[in-house]
Order: sequence, then C-alpha cells, then structure tokens
Amino acid sequence: MTPSDSPGGGPGRELYELVAELFPICRSITGDGVRQTLGIIGRRVGLDVHEVPTGTQVLDWTVPREWNLRDAWVKDPTGRRVIDFHASNLHVVSYSVPVRATVPLAELKRHLFTLPEHPDWVPYRTSYYAEGWGFCASQRLADSLPDGEYEVCVDSTLADGHLTWGEYLVRGRSEEEVLVSCHLCHPSLANDNLSGITVATRLAELLGQGAPRRYSYRFLFIPGTIGSITWLALHQQQVGRIKHGLVLACVGDAGSLTYKRSRRGNADIDRAITHVLARSGRAHRVVEFEPYGYDERQFCSPGFDLPVGSLSRTPYAQYPEYHTSADDLDFVRPESLEDTLEVCWETLGLLEANRSYLNLRPMGEPQLGRRGLYGSIGGRSDAEQRQMAMLWILNQSDGHHSLLDIAERSNLPFALIAETATTLEHAGLLAASG
Amino acid sequence: MTPSDSPGGGPGRELYELVAELFPICRSITGDGVRQTLGIIGRRVGLDVHEVPTGTQVLDWTVPREWNLRDAWVKDPTGRRVIDFHASNLHVVSYSVPVRATVPLAELKRHLFTLPEHPDWVPYRTSYYAEGWGFCASQRLADSLPDGEYEVCVDSTLADGHLTWGEYLVRGRSEEEVLVSCHLCHPSLANDNLSGITVATRLAELLGQGAPRRYSYRFLFIPGTIGSITWLALHQQQVGRIKHGLVLACVGDAGSLTYKRSRRGNADIDRAITHVLARSGRAHRVVEFEPYGYDERQFCSPGFDLPVGSLSRTPYAQYPEYHTSADDLDFVRPESLEDTLEVCWETLGLLEANRSYLNLRPMGEPQLGRRGLYGSIGGRSDAEQRQMAMLWILNQSDGHHSLLDIAERSNLPFALIAETATTLEHAGLLAASG
Amino acid sequence: MTPSDSPGGGPGRELYELVAELFPICRSITGDGVRQTLGIIGRRVGLDVHEVPTGTQVLDWTVPREWNLRDAWVKDPTGRRVIDFHASNLHVVSYSVPVRATVPLAELKRHLFTLPEHPDWVPYRTSYYAEGWGFCASQRLADSLPDGEYEVCVDSTLADGHLTWGEYLVRGRSEEEVLVSCHLCHPSLANDNLSGITVATRLAELLGQGAPRRYSYRFLFIPGTIGSITWLALHQQQVGRIKHGLVLACVGDAGSLTYKRSRRGNADIDRAITHVLARSGRAHRVVEFEPYGYDERQFCSPGFDLPVGSLSRTPYAQYPEYHTSADDLDFVRPESLEDTLEVCWETLGLLEANRSYLNLRPMGEPQLGRRGLYGSIGGRSDAEQRQMAMLWILNQSDGHHSLLDIAERSNLPFALIAETATTLEHAGLLAASG
Repeated sequence: MTPSDSPGGGPGRELYELVAELFPICRSITGDGVRQTLGIIGRRVGLDVHEVPTGTQVLDWTVPREWNLRDAWVKDPTGRRVIDFHASNLHVVSYSVPVRATVPLAELKRHLFTLPEHPDWVPYRTSYYAEGWGFCASQRLADSLPDGEYEVCVDSTLADGHLTWGEYLVRGRSEEEVLVSCHLCHPSLANDNLSGITVATRLAELLGQGAPRRYSYRFLFIPGTIGSITWLALHQQQVGRIKHGLVLACVGDAGSLTYKRSRRGNADIDRAITHVLARSGRAHRVVEFEPYGYDERQFCSPGFDLPVGSLSRTPYAQYPEYHTSADDLDFVRPESLEDTLEVCWETLGLLEANRSYLNLRPMGEPQLGRRGLYGSIGGRSDAEQRQMAMLWILNQSDGHHSLLDIAERSNLPFALIAETATTLEHAGLLAASG
Repeated sequence: MTPSDSPGGGPGRELYELVAELFPICRSITGDGVRQTLGIIGRRVGLDVHEVPTGTQVLDWTVPREWNLRDAWVKDPTGRRVIDFHASNLHVVSYSVPVRATVPLAELKRHLFTLPEHPDWVPYRTSYYAEGWGFCASQRLADSLPDGEYEVCVDSTLADGHLTWGEYLVRGRSEEEVLVSCHLCHPSLANDNLSGITVATRLAELLGQGAPRRYSYRFLFIPGTIGSITWLALHQQQVGRIKHGLVLACVGDAGSLTYKRSRRGNADIDRAITHVLARSGRAHRVVEFEPYGYDERQFCSPGFDLPVGSLSRTPYAQYPEYHTSADDLDFVRPESLEDTLEVCWETLGLLEANRSYLNLRPMGEPQLGRRGLYGSIGGRSDAEQRQMAMLWILNQSDGHHSLLDIAERSNLPFALIAETATTLEHAGLLAASG
Repeated sequence: MTPSDSPGGGPGRELYELVAELFPICRSITGDGVRQTLGIIGRRVGLDVHEVPTGTQVLDWTVPREWNLRDAWVKDPTGRRVIDFHASNLHVVSYSVPVRATVPLAELKRHLFTLPEHPDWVPYRTSYYAEGWGFCASQRLADSLPDGEYEVCVDSTLADGHLTWGEYLVRGRSEEEVLVSCHLCHPSLANDNLSGITVATRLAELLGQGAPRRYSYRFLFIPGTIGSITWLALHQQQVGRIKHGLVLACVGDAGSLTYKRSRRGNADIDRAITHVLARSGRAHRVVEFEPYGYDERQFCSPGFDLPVGSLSRTPYAQYPEYHTSADDLDFVRPESLEDTLEVCWETLGLLEANRSYLNLRPMGEPQLGRRGLYGSIGGRSDAEQRQMAMLWILNQSDGHHSLLDIAERSNLPFALIAETATTLEHAGLLAASG
C-alpha cells in the first residue's frame, strides 16, 4: 500500500459508469434485483453469493418472504397508464402485495405517496414488514388525476424464497479483518447507495491485486438492516476478528465528506480517518456516533460494539433529494466518487502501516549522525520535518504509543512517520512491538 | 412523580404568604424564634422538633447558650427611642448580651453598625461566639444623632438552654435518602432564608402526599452552621444513606437560578439539576463548588463529602440587599419562589426516575416494528425524537449507562428517555439493572 | 526559602557581568575553554569538575577527541588576514581539524559559511562528528574577496583527551533532588548560553547559603548533548532521585518567558512553573514538550523520562540572532536575566513548600473562631482571601491533594495557600502527610 498503488489517477468516470449500469435495476431487500446487482459486481471481483431461506431466525428478526415484481401500473378512467413501473421502479412501494382492482380516485389516493414540497419528484417508499400495496408519484401527477375509476395492477410475488447477499474476502497475512460494508437494497437511487456499492467494489478490486496485505479485507454487499442482522447472526463467533470497519453510503454527491464515529468514539478507524481528513486539507466534518443511519447501527449495537464507522458525503436524510427520484444519475459526480475512494484508500493504508515500535536505544538519544541519519554539520539548522519525525518516533516508542499516536502528538503526517519508522527500523534503532 | 403531580399550577402566592407569615419573627441560631418558626412550618408538615442542650460537644463545636430577646432600644438625650427592636429585629446584633447603661454618643457609636454605602438600610450583624452587644441602624440615623448621653437597653437572656431544629422524613420504598436542607436562623430577612424555608416546606408537603416514592426524603430546618454540625454529629452513622442532597437558600429574588455543584463536582444531583436547567430554557448558571456559602460547607467537608449541592437565585453575598433590611418582603417574588419550586420538583423527579437498564436483545437492533414500536411504512421518515430515544436507550443500555447518561449523550430530554425506557421495558426489551 | 531570601532586589547587573566575563572564551564540547569557564564559575560556587577520557562509551555515544584551538586565519592574496580567530572565535568551525594550505578562492568558499540573509553577521557552525575544517564570515566579507590564492591556517589539535563538566550539589534535608542543567559548549554567544550559565550559577549561590532546604539541588554545567549523555550514562542508578528538573537556556534576551513542559506534560515542575508564571502577571507562554531543543531531549528520552522542563525567553532557534554573531552582549539584558532568576527562584520555593496535609478535623468545619482564626463578628463579611484559603485547605486536605492542587483549584496564590497551611498546622488542624 505504497503511494504508487494510489488510485488517484484512476478516473472517477469508471466509478460513475458502474453507478449508471446498476441504476435501472429494481432492487429491494430480497429478490432478483439483488441477484442481478451481485452479478454485475461479480464481474469485477470474485464474489461469494450467499442465500438464506425465508423464515430463518436471525437474532431478533426473521428472514422475510422474497419479493419480486414483474409489472405495475395505474390506468386512468380513459385507460391510459398514468403510473407505470417501467418508467421508474420508484413508482411502486417496495414489497407491495399483488393487487388487481378498479378503485375510485379517492381510494387510489389512499395508496398514493407524493412529495407536496417537491411537486415534480417521486418519493421512494417501502413496506417490508406490513402487508399492503401502494404507488408513488409526483404531486403534479396526483393533482392532475380526474375523478373516476382507476384500474390498478401490481404484478408481484411475495413468497417463500431467500435473502441474498454478496461477500468478498481478500485474505491478508493475518486473520484480523477490516470490514467494508454497503447496502444494495435500494432501487433506482444513485447516491443512496449505488455510490457506496461502487466505491466498495473498486476498493475490493484494488485490494485483490498484488501481494497479501497485513489485514484481511471483508466486503459485504448486503440489504440494509436485515442483511447485516443476518450476517451478524451467522458470524457471531467470528466478529472478534474485525479490527476496523467502515460502512459506505451516500458517497457520490457534490457535498464534502462526513465521517460518523463508531460507538466506541475513538477506535483506530475513527482516529485514522480523522487524521487523513484533517491532513488532506479537504473540507469535511467528523460527527459523533448516533444509533441511526445505515448498518453501523447493527455493527455498533451494544452486543457487538464493533469498531465500525460510517463515511458519507452529505449524510443520511440531510439532502432534499434523499429517497426521491431526484437522487438520480445527475446527483452523483465522478469526481466525488473518486475523492471518496482516495480517502478510503489512504485510510486503509494508514491502518495497514499503523503499528507500535520499541526504541532499542531508549536511554538518551541514539547518535543519529554516525548512522548517516543526520546532517553532519551542526549549528544553525532549521528543524526539518524528517528529523523531527525521527526524534518524535524515538521519544515516543516506549511500547505505549502507535505510529498514529505519534503522528497525532507530533502533528506530523502519518505517512512521514511511517516511512521514517521504517528507516529507523532498518538502522536497528526500532523493533516492531505490535 | 408523574407530570400530573406537577406543582406548576400552584400559585407562587401561597409560597409568598408563608414567607410573609414568618417574616416578623426574631430568629437566631437558638431561642424561641426558632421554636415559633418550626411551629408555623409544623402546621403544614408533621415536623419532628429536636433539641440538644447547651454544652453538648458536636464535632469540633459546642452547642452554645440559648439566646432570647425581649426588648432592646436606644434613647437619645431627650429620651426618645431612636433605635427600637420593635420596629425591626435587625436593630439588635444577634446574641447581644444584656446591657442597661447610659453612654456618650462616641461610645454608642462603637457599638453601632451601619452601611455607609446604603445610608437608608440597616445591616444584619451577629456575635454568636464572642460576647458583646450592639445595635444596627441606618447611616442616615447614625448621622443625625446629636451629641449627648444615650440610654441603651438590651433586655436579653443568654443562658443554658437548647439548640432547636425541625426535621421531616418522608419514607420511601427504600432507605436511601434525598436530603433537602435550609437554614432558619435569620431574623427578618426574606430571601435569606425565608425563601428557602418556604420552598422546602412546600416540597415536603408535596412529597408527603400519595404513594411512597423510590427514595426517602429528609428535610432539615436548621440553624446555619451549628445546626448542620449538630445534625451531622448525631447522625454520623447514617449519612451514608444520603444519595443526593440540596441546600436551598436565597431562592426568592428576581435573579435567575444559580446551582453550585457539590464538592464531588459530578454527582448525580449535580448532573440532574444541570440537565433540568439546561433543558428548561431558563437563564441560569452552574458554578463550581467552593467551601463557602451555606450548610453545603458542612455536608461537603472532607470527612463527609456528601453529594449535596446548593441552589440559589442570586447567590450568597452577591446582591447588595444581602444581610440588610433591604432583603425584605419586596425583595422576594411569588413567581421566583414558584420557579425555584418547579426546578426542584423536576430535579427530584429526574432522580426518582433515573436508573440503569439492560438491553435484553443487545445483538443488533431488536425488530421494533413487529412490537408496534415503529412506523410500519419505511422510506422517507424524519428521525423523530421518540424513535431516537428508543434507539439510544437500546444502544446504550449495556449495564454501564444510566438514563441520565443516555439523556446527556443523546441530547434528548430526560423525561422522554425515561418514558421511552418504560415503554421498552413493557415490551420486554429492557430490564432494570440498577 | 521565605520571601526575605528573594533575590529580587539583587541587580541584574551582577548577572550581566558574569555573562560579559565569560563571553570571550573559545568554548566547544571539549577543551580548555570549558575548563576556563568552569574555573570562573568555580570562583562563585564550589564546583566539582569531572573529566572522562576520549573513547569512553556513554550510552549510544563515544566521548570524542578533545579539541583545542590556538589560532586560525585566512590571508588574502595580498597576505592580509581577512579572517582572524582572534577577532571572534565564531570565525572557526568548531572541531576544525588542523590545516595549513594555500587554496584558490573557489576552494576556500567551499569551506566558508555565511548568512546571506544577514550580510553583516557571522554564523556559528560546528563539525563535531565529521572531520573537516571551515571558516565562518559575514556575507559582506565573502563578497569582497578578490580572486586569487588564499593561505589558510587552522592551528588546532584534535586528539585523545577528556570531556569536562562541572557539577555542584547543594545537599538538602532529603536525598531527593532538583536538577538544574545548562550547556556551556558555545563560544562567544551570549544568550545561548551564557545567560543560562549565569542564572544557574546565581541560583546555586543562593541555594548554597543558609540552612539546608528540603530538597538537594544538583547543578550541571555541561557540554550540550554529549555532556548530558555522559552524565546520564554515569548516573543511571541515581536518576530516580531527581524529582524535578529544569534546563536553562536562552534566558537573557528581551523576549518574554517560554516554558516547555517535560515529556510527562503534567509533572510538578510543569505545574509549579505554570502557576508561578500565570500568577505573576508576566506575559509568557507554556508550550508542549517536543523532542527538540536542549538537554531536556536527553533527560526526557523514553528510557529516563525525567520530570525535566525547559525555561527560555525567546525559544531555541526562534530569533534571527540565534547561532550568529548577533547573539552578543547587546542581545542580553540585565533585567531579563534578573526576571528569569526571579521566576526560577519562586518556582523552586513553590516546590520546596508544596506538600500534602491531612485535615485533622475533617468532619464538618473546625471552629476557626475559638482558635482566633476567624473574625468574631459574623454577618456581612466579604470573603477575604485568607479566610478562603483556610476553608479551601481544610476542605481539600483529605490526603489526595497537595497545596499546589489546592492553589490550582481555588485559584488562589500558592504563597497564600502555603502560609495559611502553616498557620493551620500550628493551630493543630493540619498534619503534613506527604
């Protein structure tokens, strides 16, 4: 994970194209849309696709029936399709049960969701755990519907089947894992969360290349909530391997980055990404954990309390386009996707390189000059960063401070600290201790 | 202690009337003024009145002789009473020994206390532990006194007797106690401390009604310093029962509330009242402990170090009317007394309701929807406070966090947290753990 | 260490005169200049002078050969001495090996150091651990040198000899030590570090007078880096005695005082000097430890981690005159030297007086009045500092708080706290506990 691995030069365009390819698919928490999405991701990285049958008990939950939708529409009194699933999969409330009926406008409206404050946008609605059906439409359309009888059709199946998710493990030199998780249960919404899927996929590709890293990396492409619940239920004995984790969601919009800390608040992932963001000069925000948002809610539930934070650009529900048809392909930007990828990559690099060393000459300063580590003409010399890095590392490497601790205390860039530690290790002055 | 118990609707007028009723009595640290005061309080709550004889050793102190005053005056050379105890009991230095003499003006002035900076006010002075006598008068009066011989009379007794105090215990479901203490040794001073006596009396009345509370409540109506010293001396073995405590003094003036923390600095009482004040939108101050002020000095001495804070409006000695005749019935306000009572009441309610719970489904989030605890139509839903309260409680109830901890971390009102915890407990998701 | 010992009245002039007396000597990390300097200091305090032979292994270092310089010059093509050691010892790079040669201007310039940004100043350069020779001159001179052949002469010896330092121990009532260290290896530089040597010498004189103090005081006059390395190497078993320490350097310029904390960050020395500076009303800065600067680098290396901070005025390398000929006798000020001395003296006095007491009457407040410690007329009395000091000391003296803790918490001056503690001890209310 040297700078030469950096994906910085890679075009955000490539990331954007994966978003665009996945955009039209009708996804929900179960069903063929999920399988189709995993198929596309699987052409890039060697995914394991897992399925768990309906009715399986997973922690406090039960795997629901599988939902698939073939068609759905509403015809006005003249027989014209005024709402049509084929125009946008957002038009159907996710998990709508099959229905075929003729209803007066008033009854139709009880099943119709709109956004009065954004009259041209179609909302996104779901009804996973309460049987029902519904349509979503623009307020403008709803207002234009004349009185009369409407034919409605939801040609769906809600039946025993499976919950599906994808998993990709890049084995490292140790069994300690870094978890990267994203949800893939949303239909045609670009930022939430095709952006997260795309950045995770690219990270997986990059990490799958080259020699094994220090950590193993586990990527989860899972339906929100029930997916992480299911995965946690099946892996309760192994979660202790997860040393660091990141949930990626809403990472493609034009806003600046927002990192939400893990429940622990000061885990290494929290400190690593905070250091990277602060050092990068990017506008950004680091916010405290709250038990709301994406699957970090599950990873950070008190029984697991994993060191998993969450990276977004404009966070969850804080932009008007959130969960509407306006979260479309115009809403995500290639350069934002690439920027997010860079920060993730640098953060993972920091975690790979972060370790503790022991100063092997802790009594006084070792003589750097005779080891060629120091300018030999003394006197007036401005303190240079590299020299300060050497002195800080030697001073703090008492077995209680990691390189990240030292970077934070010295206010020097982690990369410089890590490189300099390697130099000092080669000079026989440091030994890795953790 | 549900909101329906709230005394908010009760008129501050009633509180004010008790201040007015107690105002004329000549109180000191001992004597019949104390007994008379306790008699009036005792008509409202079933006080136990205790007496300890002069000479009793109490900690580092000795119970002093009892002082009673029948009359006191100064006659000018023409025989006119220019200073008269019957006009105001502040005119006599408390604990003045008997005297009957004729003295020239110069000598009289050596016994005369005034406030040059407030020429119309009469100061309040005491001489508990040094024998002597004196009068207090306005500077204007002192300046008007012509030369000549003055007849002075203090018709007092200072003799073996008793130290008297009142105590009222409301037994709760546990022997753990909340202490509410106020001093009743000041003569005609309204804010200091008839205001405190009055608010304490009303709290005692309210707590004496209805079913037993979780805590027992002990109210002390005691002379300042020697009273708390005596009470502590006699109850050294029981003070461990005191889990929370509050000294009430100067709680009726027009200023905003000031809470002084206990010596511990972050005891539950400190956090509870801070939360109540911060949430209330009231202007207020929370100040650090200092070993000065009222009887919190004794309760917070290092050998006891009880979790006792002190509530005032304008604090001790920080208003010019303090310990002068200007601390009169115009200086206290019905609405201030009522406002103080409300904050006390809400704080005690918080302490009653504050406990720790254990999330019984700590692995992942429990499925709130199937328990009817969650809106069933998902998708766009603004995070509502109640839902956030549920999630915070579940996330933090790991045995290490009280409801107050959770209210502080979530920045949600304690009352909402407590109500929601009850809901979750009824739903079988939480069990009380402390 | 009572206020009457205060050196405040002593003239800074006397300090300045020692700076001036030491200024002309050609010092380096070894050699006769060091011995000569110790000889002058030794006329004031009874120094022990120590020598360790060349080649001795000291921690990670080796004692270098001893360097002595008799003469050095550069003659221009006309035979004129354009650079002359006798004009200023800064003209010769310290530790230059002997040389006698005729070289063209171009080659001379490869051995010539200047300061282009300050064309009239001569830089100070050393080459302790890399064999070579060189001259330092003003840029103006360098620019004026015509082409041609130059005769250069360095009449030095670099040969087996000794490393020399001075040490002065003032024995106290305990073997616990306060360390005061300064470097004496710089030639004609006044602030760096004749100022430090001078203040340390005066402190040693003052402490050597009168009755033994609580602590023993050890003064080190040592060559920078190799001197502290050598001293630490030889005293590894005894450094545990050092309870507080101070490195003095650059303490005579017109800037305000800067204290750099020890590596521990909150050692008693850090807190003591911070308290003294904050209370004094002086402009000052307190900065965090960093592993750069003077011999605190060695004392605070992780294997020793001694509680040693560093006091300067304008710190290390932060003034343009640093390590140039402009750090001369005009650059240091009598009043600055005296001001530094006062702060050191007050800080040492604080450390001497700082101890923990136990309140012997911890239950309630002791009755101060009957012990004559309190005004006997109560009532309106403004809280006076002395009374507050008594109450704070009694309240906090529970065995866990030192007088410095109490001064910090009460925001009262340490001197008042210490004096008042003595009063309370004499009254039988306190007992020293640490």
